[in-house]
Amino acid sequence: MNYTIRKAVEADVANIFGLIEELAIFEKEADAVIITPEDLRKDGFGASPKFHCFVAETPEDVLGIALVYMRYSTWKGEVLHLEDLIVSEKARGKGIGGKLLTEVIKFGNSLGVKRIGWEVLDWNTPAIEFYEHIGADVKRDWHVVQLDEEGIERYLANKEL
Amino acid sequence: MNYTIRKAVEADVANIFGLIEELAIFEKEADAVIITPEDLRKDGFGASPKFHCFVAETPEDVLGIALVYMRYSTWKGEVLHLEDLIVSEKARGKGIGGKLLTEVIKFGNSLGVKRIGWEVLDWNTPAIEFYEHIGADVKRDWHVVQLDEEGIERYLANKEL
Repeated sequence: MNYTIRKAVEADVANIFGLIEELAIFEKEADAVIITPEDLRKDGFGASPKFHCFVAETPEDVLGIALVYMRYSTWKGEVLHLEDLIVSEKARGKGIGGKLLTEVIKFGNSLGVKRIGWEVLDWNTPAIEFYEHIGADVKRDWHVVQLDEEGIERYLANKEL
Repeated sequence: MNYTIRKAVEADVANIFGLIEELAIFEKEADAVIITPEDLRKDGFGASPKFHCFVAETPEDVLGIALVYMRYSTWKGEVLHLEDLIVSEKARGKGIGGKLLTEVIKFGNSLGVKRIGWEVLDWNTPAIEFYEHIGADVKRDWHVVQLDEEGIERYLANKEL
């Protein structure tokens, strides 16, 4: 399959959103997606973008995306974070994910960051083995904690502030 | 103990750095801290800050910090991330960590974010129980993956690009 990887532009928003939705549907979490294409356009392609995105495409179709932004480590300073690496189900097993990851690593290197980070599900053994093979550190002793909007409101309502 | 919580200002940088170092030494990871107070000053207190920080202080001393920044969820849009919550060893057990967390949750609420996230070590049972008690979701099925500077260089050197 012939595809190229390039930085996303505003005209890619519909395709980017399509892949985000496809993955959420696959994970039976479609309702959790409250973002809209308009949010993505505004947040990613305005004057001070909140993320950067790479797309893998054939002349006909966008097959995958990698979406990144900067985080801040109190030990390392600015570090690059890979939030989402999505390859459309119809295009998996062709190495597109690996090529997108390479693009992200080149991007991080060009920015001079001291670290690139991402997250992986614990059951995804092939991915974990691949990441360790390329020299990444898979930290099994940290849990991700999330307090959603309802939790935020409940916490503040119950709290003597 | 009488202490107040407020937003950090540039003059707090030395104290913020001191707490970051104290924690790294406690974790026997002092060498991993490559950031300098000057980096913190530039990154946190310039025209477009890369993080925001809250400090807990007595008239004599800064006892704790909470350092946050925005991340980007492809499902929720901008979300607030709590990178570090540090309370000096000499001031633990007085509820300062909880008060700093409350300040972070109020801050997230004022920004209207759909989620506040952070990470916790899997052996830190009291913290995990506290987070679940306040309604946070502790996700045990995600691992954090990190590729450091040396790994980035090695990956790119070995790769046909």
